Amino acid sequence: MSGPPFRRVAIYGLGLIGGSIGLALKARWPGVQVMAIDRPHVVDSAIRMRVADAGGDTLSVASDADLVVLAAPVLQNVAALARLAGDLHGRVVVTDVSSTKRTVTEAAAGLPERIAFVGGHPLSGAAVSGIEAARPDLFADRPWILTGTERVPSAAVEALTDFVLGMRAIPRLMDAVEHDRVLAYVSHLPQLSVSALMHVVGLGAGEEGLALAGRGLRDTTRLATSPAATWRDIVATNGDNIASALDELIAALQHIKAAAAAAPADIDDLFVSAARWKGVLEHR
Amino acid sequence: MSGPPFRRVAIYGLGLIGGSIGLALKARWPGVQVMAIDRPHVVDSAIRMRVADAGGDTLSVASDADLVVLAAPVLQNVAALARLAGDLHGRVVVTDVSSTKRTVTEAAAGLPERIAFVGGHPLSGAAVSGIEAARPDLFADRPWILTGTERVPSAAVEALTDFVLGMRAIPRLMDAVEHDRVLAYVSHLPQLSVSALMHVVGLGAGEEGLALAGRGLRDTTRLATSPAATWRDIVATNGDNIASALDELIAALQHIKAAAAAAPADIDDLFVSAARWKGVLEHR
Repeated sequence: MSGPPFRRVAIYGLGLIGGSIGLALKARWPGVQVMAIDRPHVVDSAIRMRVADAGGDTLSVASDADLVVLAAPVLQNVAALARLAGDLHGRVVVTDVSSTKRTVTEAAAGLPERIAFVGGHPLSGAAVSGIEAARPDLFADRPWILTGTERVPSAAVEALTDFVLGMRAIPRLMDAVEHDRVLAYVSHLPQLSVSALMHVVGLGAGEEGLALAGRGLRDTTRLATSPAATWRDIVATNGDNIASALDELIAALQHIKAAAAAAPADIDDLFVSAARWKGVLEHR
Repeated sequence: MSGPPFRRVAIYGLGLIGGSIGLALKARWPGVQVMAIDRPHVVDSAIRMRVADAGGDTLSVASDADLVVLAAPVLQNVAALARLAGDLHGRVVVTDVSSTKRTVTEAAAGLPERIAFVGGHPLSGAAVSGIEAARPDLFADRPWILTGTERVPSAAVEALTDFVLGMRAIPRLMDAVEHDRVLAYVSHLPQLSVSALMHVVGLGAGEEGLALAGRGLRDTTRLATSPAATWRDIVATNGDNIASALDELIAALQHIKAAAAAAPADIDDLFVSAARWKGVLEHR
């Protein structure tokens, strides 16, 4: 069993992801000191749940950390990055867990050289939120993307890679621009279209109509309870890619509408393509 | 245990639904005679699987049936209805299992009075197809809609209600026009938007991008393997309702696109509405 790549880890934002990182750290390397930064009642929960050893409500709690993990929503992480140089005095590695990577990468460009920032995105795929739902195996066998690794010393990348492996996740290096483009398709468009679909279906069918729905609609709309707060930040920081993906979906829906009006067999190509990609998704 | 409402039942179209009706009939009333009408190799399978006792490839097989169940795709059922009066000579009850109800109801309007037609739609919600997937409990505890019951003698409605209860389903009387409007929302729009989504996501992300997808996308796209053939007929016979529902979904997606460009908080209302309707769907 190798030693921990970091000995004092500060986690900013103790929700599902931040809390699960604390639990996974303690499970893998019990000796690592974990500091929680959040509102006082959340820090209390983190300490009670053994997610963290100590904490506080300002970034100064992280002053002697060798790793800082920004685990708040994207725009809060960006705001924290701007204050970081004033609160952290020595050499330190900083990462985040935001769902978009360009905005946070741009914000990190202004940091002094002693602060090595690498973007991170654990693809945990949980539909719940809050520290109460945290669990040490949240990241097990799931990809954990690291971006901007070429801009920092290789020792920092190696240490972060060990950290990700300690979370039992699969590290994947990726460009921040490509990350945001691909995630618009595999994560952002599905969430936004499911929320739009559930809204339209509920309004159109009403309570009585929904009583006729089967398992198909239930599975299709599993993501429909996702909180707006998380998605507001994602929409704000990946608007261009999301707009392109939405345009493509709207075009496909308009194609179906035209088929319904004039030539039903025109839906065939789209159904064949969908079934083919579903096969790729399930059997890769 | 009450006696069977029908003693000789002909099933036209032995796919998942027709096959499961045969199995459920034999399970509930072993003495009922079941005749299968389909291509010869499908009839052979039906007899081998004990779905039916005998069969053939023309409607004349149903000549002495007291119930005929049309279980082919909608437009084939409509074509069969037009030939029915020539093939069936006595008093008979006819029903169907089509996913849309207006077209088949209109086609039945021209039948002689001795043929009592009631539209049917078992909401079984299975994502597989073909007689091989047939099972006797496919309809258990699921709604089975009956339409146009006011146009036929009450004895026919009572017998069909007993038949539906024998399938272990929950009979629900409904107007054909309202059926098609509501089903456009709870079934047709979800299927069509999922096929469009999987097509767009696959093309945009590619095989490598799909490797980053989580359980969210998998659940959302469970329906993406549905066969085009079934949906072509549904699109052809419910085009107006489907077009309205598609327009509403497109408007919601355009609202999100505008929010992404200018005011991310504008997605909040839609997320709140979606979460509320998802709650109604899951907890009614």
